[in-house]
Amino acid sequence: MAVGLTATAPGQLLAVAGVDLGWAEAAIRKPGRKDLLLIRVGEGASVAGVFTQNRFCAAPVQVCRAHLAAGKTIRALVVNTGNANAGTGASGLAHARETCIAVARNFGCAPEQVLPFSTGVIMEALPLQRLVAGLPAAIARLAPDQWAAAAETIMTTDTVPKARSRRARLGEHEITVTGIAKGAGMIRPDMATMLGFLATDAGVACELLPRLTHQVAEQSFNRITVDGDTSTNDSLMIIATGRAGAPRIDSASDPRLAQLGDAITDVARQLAQAIVRDGEGATKFIEIRIEEAASEDEAKRVAYAIAQSPLVKTAFFASDPNLGRILAAVGNAGVTDLDAGRVQLFLNEVWVARDGGRHPNYREQDGQRVMRGAEIVVRIVLDRGGAGTVLWTCDLSHDYVSINADYRS
Amino acid sequence: MAVGLTATAPGQLLAVAGVDLGWAEAAIRKPGRKDLLLIRVGEGASVAGVFTQNRFCAAPVQVCRAHLAAGKTIRALVVNTGNANAGTGASGLAHARETCIAVARNFGCAPEQVLPFSTGVIMEALPLQRLVAGLPAAIARLAPDQWAAAAETIMTTDTVPKARSRRARLGEHEITVTGIAKGAGMIRPDMATMLGFLATDAGVACELLPRLTHQVAEQSFNRITVDGDTSTNDSLMIIATGRAGAPRIDSASDPRLAQLGDAITDVARQLAQAIVRDGEGATKFIEIRIEEAASEDEAKRVAYAIAQSPLVKTAFFASDPNLGRILAAVGNAGVTDLDAGRVQLFLNEVWVARDGGRHPNYREQDGQRVMRGAEIVVRIVLDRGGAGTVLWTCDLSHDYVSINADYRS
Repeated sequence: MAVGLTATAPGQLLAVAGVDLGWAEAAIRKPGRKDLLLIRVGEGASVAGVFTQNRFCAAPVQVCRAHLAAGKTIRALVVNTGNANAGTGASGLAHARETCIAVARNFGCAPEQVLPFSTGVIMEALPLQRLVAGLPAAIARLAPDQWAAAAETIMTTDTVPKARSRRARLGEHEITVTGIAKGAGMIRPDMATMLGFLATDAGVACELLPRLTHQVAEQSFNRITVDGDTSTNDSLMIIATGRAGAPRIDSASDPRLAQLGDAITDVARQLAQAIVRDGEGATKFIEIRIEEAASEDEAKRVAYAIAQSPLVKTAFFASDPNLGRILAAVGNAGVTDLDAGRVQLFLNEVWVARDGGRHPNYREQDGQRVMRGAEIVVRIVLDRGGAGTVLWTCDLSHDYVSINADYRS
Repeated sequence: MAVGLTATAPGQLLAVAGVDLGWAEAAIRKPGRKDLLLIRVGEGASVAGVFTQNRFCAAPVQVCRAHLAAGKTIRALVVNTGNANAGTGASGLAHARETCIAVARNFGCAPEQVLPFSTGVIMEALPLQRLVAGLPAAIARLAPDQWAAAAETIMTTDTVPKARSRRARLGEHEITVTGIAKGAGMIRPDMATMLGFLATDAGVACELLPRLTHQVAEQSFNRITVDGDTSTNDSLMIIATGRAGAPRIDSASDPRLAQLGDAITDVARQLAQAIVRDGEGATKFIEIRIEEAASEDEAKRVAYAIAQSPLVKTAFFASDPNLGRILAAVGNAGVTDLDAGRVQLFLNEVWVARDGGRHPNYREQDGQRVMRGAEIVVRIVLDRGGAGTVLWTCDLSHDYVSINADYRS
């Protein structure tokens, strides 16, 4: 059901020097599917991440935070699907740590140099033995050209793998950015998507990468929502290997930092939009633009109120220009001093509402024509100031209910 | 699809002296159905209401607020279905005022003594002429025994009418409380349900009734949610006619005020629960109890985070004890210092989670047994303090999507 989503063919994915990937079928939940991914990071690389704000954050997220805080260079990332290792208490934490110990033993590094990630069912014990038993096969496959297989490995309810690559200029040099992501439901990232891994062969000092990662997330994964549910496992990781030949970016005043940020954000935003396009049951891809808000926070509140209204989402599914539902959602955004009489609503180029009511020239057939398309831009002008935001979401269909009613069976 | 909802048979609805009701088929949206309701209020009655907090509140809500603020005694309420007169700008306001003028002309009172209510499609012009043309038929039917027909008249996507009656002691006297309500979707009242009209023959001074109305709403209609969307038209009205023979309650220190509040709250809560039981597509009725929260506000946030999670709601629809989704929703409630390791989760009498993970004695088949029932209590113990709350909600089913995708067609 993915909307306008052409999966990047494996051949278009560019290797990133200093990053090797290997996968295995470890039967973590079901046999016969890729469910274990190893990412080996070369010496000298910087690694940073942002994680879910859900207070029931999963055990691997807690271990990631602790290992990154320990300050050692990161040498490996290990990812399993089929089990989120979330809501698993003290034994879940022990399982995440033992996963790192097993990887570290194979790589000859300390457990704190390994970061664990899990995605899948919540509140069930991680099958640690099967995971560890799968490591040798993943190690045997480690190679720089395995990005496409890696994107497949991390899928759960995704219908297509999500991967993007691009080349970019960095000062005098050319660099590569390649990333993969997964996620289709429980998607309203509040830091990052469920799982996203991006790598570049540009070099960035360790202390600069966390802020860059945060900025990338804010303009990509933090601006999407499928169902408003923030996962327990959201993690976005950026790896900068420094193997492109370009001098390392060591200062926040280096103008190349913005260049690099733009290139990574571009890939991250394409991956984030791919998650929405492949949102559970999605039949429409909807961009919501809020303009002339009093603050960015206010703009975000209005945008999420629209994007997360079940009534708005079902109207998009039905291609029904029942656009009063959008106004009702704007009214529900918690902007207590909003003057509804100044709000304007556009659907693509069609001017639907102004002064709190239907535009005199608005014709139902124009709204109908826009709603029938698979890609729709909703633009709200609040006439309250100079701030704005944009976010991406999808509709709410029968298939969303089916997918989530049947997920475990 | 209503869950455990036995419609009160018309014969059980008790007349309230001083209140007459009349209906008509005015073809406001479609011909051949009751869609216009008049409620005539006798002299000496007090009337108070609470209304939606949606900033795009409908024209009739704005007129209600203005007419109540004018301070004259209210003599009539006029309700139409089929059109919400919301998102209709200045002409919508004019239509709501002209409705009151037409009713006032028939009743020989001032327009400010009439309160208008509308429910139905948003952002379409109210067909004022058809509404006014329907008034004579409604007036001809005015009688105290028309509560059952009135409950039918105000239905939209409701599958059953909602009406309740009871007798109660008030000091030495017996009084009557009868109410009707409607609503099935766009239900997360933030003051009141879409439409609720309650009447009692007890007497209450005008200045005491607004606070009582607010208290009733907080313990009934403000504690339910179907889809988290707050309507533009929510209105709860309480009429106290003073015809029961009991002395009027004139002071906030009169102990009978609490007695009356309990009786009205009882009827209001039954009506509010009836709205959830008849929630669009509902197959389960779910009570969410939050205990040991640090504050009532915190308890409400956790309760709504669970009740409005599409993933939790689809799991209930599937009768799937995918209970990690409930923990994930608790983690998303915005309680930033929540210690997930102290949270306990019960499903009816089954202890599912403690210390942030699965209870060692929890067996999937026990969760499965509870989930299969049509009525489920979710109890969360936060171990943070002495506050709590309870709210009522329903599941998210295929029929919710169908109903809202097809609403206008």
